[in-house]
Amino acid sequence: MKNWIEQEYRNRIQAESVNDSLVGKRLFFAGWAFRYRDQGGVIFVDLRDRSGVIQVVCRKELLGEEFSKVEKIRSEYVIGVSGTLAFRDSDSVNPKMVTGKYELIVEKIEILNASKTPPFALDEFDPTGEEVRLKYRYLDMRREELKERLISRHKLIFAIRQYLNDESFLEIETPILNKSTPEGARDFLVPSRLNQGQFYALPQSPQLFKQILMIGGMERYFQIVKCFRDEDLRADRQPEFTQLDMEFAFVSEEDIRREIEAMWKFALDKVFGVKINTPFETMPYHVAMEEYGSDKPDIRFGMKLVNVSELVKDSDFQVFSGAVTTGGVVKVICVPGGANISRKEIEDLTSWLNRDYRAKGLAYMKHGASGLESTITKRFKPEVLEAIAKAVGSKEGDMLFFGADSSKIVNASLGALRLKLSEKYDPPKTEYNFHWVVDFPMFEYDDASKTWTFLHHPFTSPKEEHWEMLRDWKAGKTVDLSKIDAKAYDLVLNGTEIGGGSIRIHNSEIQSLVLEAIGIDEASAKDKFGFLLEALSFGAPPHGGIAFGIDRVMMILTKGQSIRDVIAFPKTQKGQCLMSEAPGFVEGKQLEELKLRVVTI
Amino acid sequence: MKNWIEQEYRNRIQAESVNDSLVGKRLFFAGWAFRYRDQGGVIFVDLRDRSGVIQVVCRKELLGEEFSKVEKIRSEYVIGVSGTLAFRDSDSVNPKMVTGKYELIVEKIEILNASKTPPFALDEFDPTGEEVRLKYRYLDMRREELKERLISRHKLIFAIRQYLNDESFLEIETPILNKSTPEGARDFLVPSRLNQGQFYALPQSPQLFKQILMIGGMERYFQIVKCFRDEDLRADRQPEFTQLDMEFAFVSEEDIRREIEAMWKFALDKVFGVKINTPFETMPYHVAMEEYGSDKPDIRFGMKLVNVSELVKDSDFQVFSGAVTTGGVVKVICVPGGANISRKEIEDLTSWLNRDYRAKGLAYMKHGASGLESTITKRFKPEVLEAIAKAVGSKEGDMLFFGADSSKIVNASLGALRLKLSEKYDPPKTEYNFHWVVDFPMFEYDDASKTWTFLHHPFTSPKEEHWEMLRDWKAGKTVDLSKIDAKAYDLVLNGTEIGGGSIRIHNSEIQSLVLEAIGIDEASAKDKFGFLLEALSFGAPPHGGIAFGIDRVMMILTKGQSIRDVIAFPKTQKGQCLMSEAPGFVEGKQLEELKLRVVTI
Repeated sequence: MKNWIEQEYRNRIQAESVNDSLVGKRLFFAGWAFRYRDQGGVIFVDLRDRSGVIQVVCRKELLGEEFSKVEKIRSEYVIGVSGTLAFRDSDSVNPKMVTGKYELIVEKIEILNASKTPPFALDEFDPTGEEVRLKYRYLDMRREELKERLISRHKLIFAIRQYLNDESFLEIETPILNKSTPEGARDFLVPSRLNQGQFYALPQSPQLFKQILMIGGMERYFQIVKCFRDEDLRADRQPEFTQLDMEFAFVSEEDIRREIEAMWKFALDKVFGVKINTPFETMPYHVAMEEYGSDKPDIRFGMKLVNVSELVKDSDFQVFSGAVTTGGVVKVICVPGGANISRKEIEDLTSWLNRDYRAKGLAYMKHGASGLESTITKRFKPEVLEAIAKAVGSKEGDMLFFGADSSKIVNASLGALRLKLSEKYDPPKTEYNFHWVVDFPMFEYDDASKTWTFLHHPFTSPKEEHWEMLRDWKAGKTVDLSKIDAKAYDLVLNGTEIGGGSIRIHNSEIQSLVLEAIGIDEASAKDKFGFLLEALSFGAPPHGGIAFGIDRVMMILTKGQSIRDVIAFPKTQKGQCLMSEAPGFVEGKQLEELKLRVVTI
Repeated sequence: MKNWIEQEYRNRIQAESVNDSLVGKRLFFAGWAFRYRDQGGVIFVDLRDRSGVIQVVCRKELLGEEFSKVEKIRSEYVIGVSGTLAFRDSDSVNPKMVTGKYELIVEKIEILNASKTPPFALDEFDPTGEEVRLKYRYLDMRREELKERLISRHKLIFAIRQYLNDESFLEIETPILNKSTPEGARDFLVPSRLNQGQFYALPQSPQLFKQILMIGGMERYFQIVKCFRDEDLRADRQPEFTQLDMEFAFVSEEDIRREIEAMWKFALDKVFGVKINTPFETMPYHVAMEEYGSDKPDIRFGMKLVNVSELVKDSDFQVFSGAVTTGGVVKVICVPGGANISRKEIEDLTSWLNRDYRAKGLAYMKHGASGLESTITKRFKPEVLEAIAKAVGSKEGDMLFFGADSSKIVNASLGALRLKLSEKYDPPKTEYNFHWVVDFPMFEYDDASKTWTFLHHPFTSPKEEHWEMLRDWKAGKTVDLSKIDAKAYDLVLNGTEIGGGSIRIHNSEIQSLVLEAIGIDEASAKDKFGFLLEALSFGAPPHGGIAFGIDRVMMILTKGQSIRDVIAFPKTQKGQCLMSEAPGFVEGKQLEELKLRVVTI
């Protein structure tokens, strides 16, 4: 019965591949009935396939008995049609459709499958909540938005692979079933049945394996690979995410950056036709923190943080002077044209910054006709106010917001305020801005545990010129470990960190010193990553690498709201798949085989 | 200190990229000291990088004080050298080396890292056991064998992606954290911390998701993806393996096969320069079983199984006649030139077939000067012996082996015997043979559980012409379910099944009948894959697909002994990684968070 149509599948063409040269030809299309209009004796169906939509015209006079099939068609029925492509009459051309000047005069038709009525509309904006769209992900996928994002994702990842293949990188698969190391985030565990009482861990990243590959002489490695973190899914996180992981041997920081820039330039042009300039701007970490209050600044607009501690430290305004004398800072941002921000808005901003960033208050001054004005301006000498206005470059109609606290709190709160006010008062001047943040400190003091910890990871190399400081520290001299810089770099796109990496340590003396500095003794180092330490002693080449979060990159490039928008089957914040209902309870037998018991509290 | 060399990295060229045009040029190489010869005042080092080896010549007269560095070089030290490329003297040209007519006259050298002495030799065949090579995988990787396999693997996978991208397939990632379904092999489980008492399962294949993608309108999907099975690792299996997974909408069996053939043709030519003929031969399942005793026959040589049941059923030889009268079969294979197989060898073969295939005995006859000869020939009429010889096509000097038992045992044992004797008596005539096995039965009766089960999986479509049998069965008529064929196909390469697939059911009536036939009731079907059944009711297009085991394909194409040979970091048969020592015990705190307890027996 369906034989004619099975034979036609191989001749099938995509809706949006029609063109003038095909007019008059017999063509076969298959897809979904997107919209249909019954005009009595003539039924118009918009047939939708992956490429788009084409109007097919079913005339009773032409189809005879077959026309009864057409009358059964409803939304989302699957149909196959064979007919002759024609130009539409000039008055029925639809300029909004890519194929709006064509129609197919149907000669043969088959309903390939029926469909229940979808729970939400597929053909236009539908305010349906995300939960329903996640449950019926296959229907959401038929909508333009998600479909286009998944197609772009394929294209971007393929373009990256193409570029890296041409540049002699090898894609090498590393294991998903690994050993658990208590460093970093929480591991997902996988009980081993063959090794009872033992567990595999899903990788948080292939870090150790990619270094091993360099020691193994693979020289240039990449992998587009799933990574896993069992985190509390606050923010926009997924338990599994996709990483572009790379490692190079015989390489400098500079070499890695140039290669990465060329890769993104190629991929963005190829997939989105977006031209970006290279080399990317490079900003030292301390400048990013000082001027933007963030290690991943969005530099597509101004409102930089300006340090006015020196100007205000002797003022009568105790909030400012006190902050400076107790070791803190006073910084200010200038919001262009922000003088009309209302007192109510300022109150809302103040309580938000207090709640989320522990900022005790939000002092402000308007730049009026005669300079800075505020309830607090009388506490400052006129020349100080002038100097502040000058330092921050304000002009009449601007608003100045101040932060006065520890530099950590001031940076975080003013940095956040800057981002929040950008859209309205100082919108980004370019669509995409990639830039590097470099010269990260190697170590960070953790006030809570009163220990030094690493900012990137313990295999990151300190800058050569700072190795001597480590040796001095080892020899018992007083050394400020925070002054040791790492050969680490992050890539920031529009204020989001999309990737980071470093030159690794390939020298066992320095590796031991670094581990010692962060309080990992030999025995525990051996237990955690002994195989890497041993491998380093068998001729490890100088090497370094980087890793990118593909989901985040895709979200930014396709203007999604969440990484869920660029993942075919995402999980909710509780780690559930609403479509397949994972996770679930398992049979007792499965746990018995693993010698595991679920313990109720 | 190392600054000159960091600057040189970007100019580095690969050892085997040298050619005549580079002679006289200043070049920079970096790599490992593979071999070295100290001739007093001149040290020759074979520098090895990913591409191969080049000889670098370090002269004391040229290097001055730097020469002391050269004297420190030992095997596997990492070095960077800068110098001028020269032709070797004609008497020192090494025709065995790709770069054998060149040498680099070193002007600058740096030791980038030292190395301990490797536990096994890297430069030639080393009989080191696999365990040591797995523990020091990074050293094994520096050896030609493993390195070349990993490079070919990258190339093959990239070529496949390239082909499929060009053919409009989209690579779409499906989740690794899934719901456990008790069908098929044992799942690896991942406890969910956010949903206590519940578990994710690692995917055995993305089967349900790829069908969902078709229902979602993605039309042509592929993915190269890790899959997982918690099996007892007898044979050559890995707990995680790599699959090329594909699915097509609006497709016939034939269309899929043509596309797959073109894909392998492209990839094998591109990566290995191997030309294969398409279309591949197609063999019905019942022919494969009848003539080769296997559903994955190696058809590169003869020795087919010939059914002689009719000829021997009335003979005096009770072993044969009895087998036939009790519903079994008698089959024979002819081993060309096998007449010299000794009695001892036959005894060994007999006990092997008895042990592994439950064959009760192995009758044999030689084809001598006057026809078939054996201790049992007197039990047969001369014309029967002649007919047997004729049926099997034997000639003087050949050996005939017989199997007489249930067809299951005869097929398995003679099929295995055929493979075993091939190398010596009837070696394969082509390097690579791809062929399809088609027309699989839909259902198989399981004697143990006395139930019908599926041969492929429950979403495979029965052939349209057999749908009526299913409806009859449902209506209570007597129907032999084993006579229903599936639209399923396997691809066999050199006697190994490398992939299999089917046209899926897209019709909910047939899906229900199939599930019912294999004893899955509605409630349990809903629990196991309810979301797929629901999705099928929302306009599922006709679709089908296939999946390939990439590790197996690579093993065959690179002539490996085990799939471990083509995996960068494989696990042992106990599921352990000897390098990273996964799996391992975890901290009590990790289990507490998961509300799990390991139960000792």
